[in-house]
Amino acid sequence: MKEKLGSTNALYPLVTAIVGATVDGTPDFATIAHLGIAHLRGITLGMGNVHLTNKGIIENGTFSVNLPSEDMVAVTDHIGMVSGAKEDKSSLFELFYGELETAPMIEECKVTMECKLVEHVRLPTHDLFVGEVVGTYADVDVLTNGLVDIAKLKPLLFDMASKKYWSLGEPVAKCWSVGKEYAPQSS
Amino acid sequence: MKEKLGSTNALYPLVTAIVGATVDGTPDFATIAHLGIAHLRGITLGMGNVHLTNKGIIENGTFSVNLPSEDMVAVTDHIGMVSGAKEDKSSLFELFYGELETAPMIEECKVTMECKLVEHVRLPTHDLFVGEVVGTYADVDVLTNGLVDIAKLKPLLFDMASKKYWSLGEPVAKCWSVGKEYAPQSS
Repeated sequence: MKEKLGSTNALYPLVTAIVGATVDGTPDFATIAHLGIAHLRGITLGMGNVHLTNKGIIENGTFSVNLPSEDMVAVTDHIGMVSGAKEDKSSLFELFYGELETAPMIEECKVTMECKLVEHVRLPTHDLFVGEVVGTYADVDVLTNGLVDIAKLKPLLFDMASKKYWSLGEPVAKCWSVGKEYAPQSS
Repeated sequence: MKEKLGSTNALYPLVTAIVGATVDGTPDFATIAHLGIAHLRGITLGMGNVHLTNKGIIENGTFSVNLPSEDMVAVTDHIGMVSGAKEDKSSLFELFYGELETAPMIEECKVTMECKLVEHVRLPTHDLFVGEVVGTYADVDVLTNGLVDIAKLKPLLFDMASKKYWSLGEPVAKCWSVGKEYAPQSS
């Protein structure tokens, strides 16, 4: 028997990212975990439309998604608490660029992606941005067989109920595999 | 120095959900992890437009998001491998309904949400659905102080590179708190 909890979003944890954009010629960053995947190359960002970073995403049609590891938790949280209108965040990191000239990527983040904006849905209080990944960059020390190894990356997983960042645990089972063992109960 | 990995989506892990809808009067389910949060009550689903479940979401304007725990990994993976066109998934679980009559929820999942479709973005190969949570339900044994406790829920975290479901780890730090300890390096 379940308890009704109102209409709380319970889709947690989600991976924490530092989103980058260029606002009035200056790199700006926002920490968000209200994001997701739309398809194999598609990323969604849900960002309150008061954020300064949104302006840069809309103006240039580009953004970056940078994944901080556990050892970056303090700076990640700091960026989530301070507006780019009050602090110039462009000097917090060493930056680099890929194909897109207005998607600043963070060298200190071991995995980064540069994205082209393909859809912009204006919700009442939020911008929902849908981007397509055009370039993915990773430090070699987080790769296994040429792919990002999340156990090495140690991403920060955000949960709203506990207001905490969580670590990744251990593998549970193989996808498209463990289900073969499942036999529906006959009625 | 980073290595370029093409344009791979690296926004993993994401929480795995079993999405429910009513298709031609019958409850149908799809396992997806290409989803996300748009805002405090908004959930995004990115679903290949060949899925049967999409049809039900579009017809009724409703869907459910059910969060399986680690002990449901086999049935969760099974649902991700079998099309509703080939197998009637309505008998796999005990179902219940909240306010919406066409958003079947799964009793065996300890946390479930019923959602109203508010936006439908047609991408080339995928439907991007944006839903608003209208009701959230949880077993009391996953609650702490009335909120969902993800350590008790034990969600399945999906990663595409390893093709594995992963468990949640431990808390790393408090949000909107650990960042106060961060002092930008003076240049």
